[in-house]
Amino acid sequence: MVKIPKHRFEERLTQLRSKLAQDDIAHFIVFNPTHIYYLTGFVHIPTERPFALIVQDANISLFVPELEKQNVEENLPNAEKIGTYFDYPDAKHPMQHFATFLKDELKITGKLGAEAPGSSGRWGYEGPRLEEVLGFPVQVLPQILTNMRIIKDEDELACIRESAMWANLAHQFLQDFTRVGANEVEVSTSASLKASLAMGKALGIMYRPFTFSGLPAHAGYRGQIGTHSAIPHAMTRFAEFRSGDTLVTGASANVAGYYAELERTMFMGPPNDKQQKYFAIMMEAQEAAFDAFVPNVPCSTVDKAARRVFKNHGVMHLVQHHTGHAIGLEGHEKPFLDHGMDVIMKPRMVFTVEPGIYDPKIGGFRHSDTVFITEDGMERVTYYPRDIDYLTIPE
Amino acid sequence: MVKIPKHRFEERLTQLRSKLAQDDIAHFIVFNPTHIYYLTGFVHIPTERPFALIVQDANISLFVPELEKQNVEENLPNAEKIGTYFDYPDAKHPMQHFATFLKDELKITGKLGAEAPGSSGRWGYEGPRLEEVLGFPVQVLPQILTNMRIIKDEDELACIRESAMWANLAHQFLQDFTRVGANEVEVSTSASLKASLAMGKALGIMYRPFTFSGLPAHAGYRGQIGTHSAIPHAMTRFAEFRSGDTLVTGASANVAGYYAELERTMFMGPPNDKQQKYFAIMMEAQEAAFDAFVPNVPCSTVDKAARRVFKNHGVMHLVQHHTGHAIGLEGHEKPFLDHGMDVIMKPRMVFTVEPGIYDPKIGGFRHSDTVFITEDGMERVTYYPRDIDYLTIPE
Repeated sequence: MVKIPKHRFEERLTQLRSKLAQDDIAHFIVFNPTHIYYLTGFVHIPTERPFALIVQDANISLFVPELEKQNVEENLPNAEKIGTYFDYPDAKHPMQHFATFLKDELKITGKLGAEAPGSSGRWGYEGPRLEEVLGFPVQVLPQILTNMRIIKDEDELACIRESAMWANLAHQFLQDFTRVGANEVEVSTSASLKASLAMGKALGIMYRPFTFSGLPAHAGYRGQIGTHSAIPHAMTRFAEFRSGDTLVTGASANVAGYYAELERTMFMGPPNDKQQKYFAIMMEAQEAAFDAFVPNVPCSTVDKAARRVFKNHGVMHLVQHHTGHAIGLEGHEKPFLDHGMDVIMKPRMVFTVEPGIYDPKIGGFRHSDTVFITEDGMERVTYYPRDIDYLTIPE
Repeated sequence: MVKIPKHRFEERLTQLRSKLAQDDIAHFIVFNPTHIYYLTGFVHIPTERPFALIVQDANISLFVPELEKQNVEENLPNAEKIGTYFDYPDAKHPMQHFATFLKDELKITGKLGAEAPGSSGRWGYEGPRLEEVLGFPVQVLPQILTNMRIIKDEDELACIRESAMWANLAHQFLQDFTRVGANEVEVSTSASLKASLAMGKALGIMYRPFTFSGLPAHAGYRGQIGTHSAIPHAMTRFAEFRSGDTLVTGASANVAGYYAELERTMFMGPPNDKQQKYFAIMMEAQEAAFDAFVPNVPCSTVDKAARRVFKNHGVMHLVQHHTGHAIGLEGHEKPFLDHGMDVIMKPRMVFTVEPGIYDPKIGGFRHSDTVFITEDGMERVTYYPRDIDYLTIPE
């Protein structure tokens, strides 16, 4: 498996420090688990318990609950200090322990930045803001790390490329298992399991977990079967496939924390005229979006290109969402391929391209492909066949 | 399937309104998807797109992205008004559309409360606070709904009780499938799939989805196999079961959005003296915790009872977390069974009871059971056998 090499984490920390220096901030507190991974490679299961990375001048330190101590010691041996508390809420609030750790152990007396005012409000957590426990002002920079993540490095691109490969495998199993009368839960889970086991066996001792929920590779329908496929955010209902169904799929895989997105419109048996027509319009819109990717133009360009196709065909009333979003460590990231998004596209940004139309009487029509912005256009990294013949399941 | 009847949602709204009236608040904005479900029964997949429930004097209204409009119209036909915007970020920010909707459609001019200053920062979302777009002050009450959820009603208890039943089925399949040489991913997924399909078939047209990720019933190991079981928050690594392994399981099921928690310590083949000793101490601590449940005493009582057992046996250094947490719509909820938690236990609170010890050389030892506080003690609703004989897998 490709992975993020250690020097990348060092580079990211260096980049963050140089950005912080512009605001004269010497120490920065990170609570977001995705950002802790982004900066250190360390993975943990977030809970209500405060968990913080402290980015110092030349080191990092951590402040963690007792049940993460062994995990941190083994995986971040170079951390300068690891502060711990027993559990949340404890007799003294963990944020009070944290303030003591910051002041007494790390000798921090001011010039502190943080990505959030305090620990997350997850799962019943209540607690004071950092400022309240420290007694001095904290500069909150909520977007500093999110913004760093927009342009990917070559190792991140390699991970997303490999994710597309395992997603392809999971999707192929999904298509292979789909047949009239089968249950969507059984088909989706069996395809995901078979692809995940293949991924686990192929990677062997190289495999490391980056997610605690679900399988590393996944493909499924999430309820988008028949007319229900017209609901873009439908949910699984144990539906059975029937002749004539329009199907909308989704597949991905977690590779070193990174995701590609692969979605296809399929048909259970030969599509009728209406299904063929909508499929063709959707394909034309996606092709127009692909063609609109050029570096140094705004993200809105791509969305407008897809919208133009929908307008030309008079189906704009069947459109329910914009053309796509950035992707990487999270399933949706900024910037968005939206007619109101004026962020300029740059090489090494990664987007999903998924213009869709939804007719409640017929179904939903959407492919999603993942593309990398290059120096002179884009590269599509999801390579599952897109044509109607391949995507029609024989009855 | 048991479910939450409609009158409960009305009762919750009425209860919320009477609490708001104490603060002279006539309108309340809810962004949290769990709380939108808690108050209305409406389920959606949260994304970066702002999605808000407005609790009015006698009605509710919603403000949603285009892709949720059909879902809302079908499932909340009694909503007074449904405001929509196309997508995030759009040419005009959705929060600006929201302000217009609140002022022009709902005629709100002040006395507004909200559970958060603005929409969640999920998945690349950036946006202004409600106060900024409205131009008048918004009173933020972050805990008002979380606090309402602490005492469950009889229908919530029925859902958690049924969750324990499906969790039991999933756990039984997990134990049945576990054998030396098997892969944990295959065993966990197969058990979860088999239990989920049984749940889907048993419920038939009664089944409705309340979660979009994962299967409705689940059992697994999450990597807690062999010495790795000593890491309470371990992650799946495609481990194979070996003779002598200590195993820590987890099982649950989503019933109308509610969860019970069932976890067991098991052994691959006859446990040795050390494994037996730790198992016995863990059992004694859990029994002590069970016995400590009495209404009208602080939550800390239960944690202290379990700690006393661990201290008596000289294993407090192997303890990494408190005794348990409340549970319901979320996997962890407040209050916590923690020596620092002075919240008073009341009938119809629901807790997990899971004191554990973790020896990095031997493994982890933890059962988790779900209990209801009653008028005179507690009732355990997870009934999977707890004894070492049943939990020893023959080789």
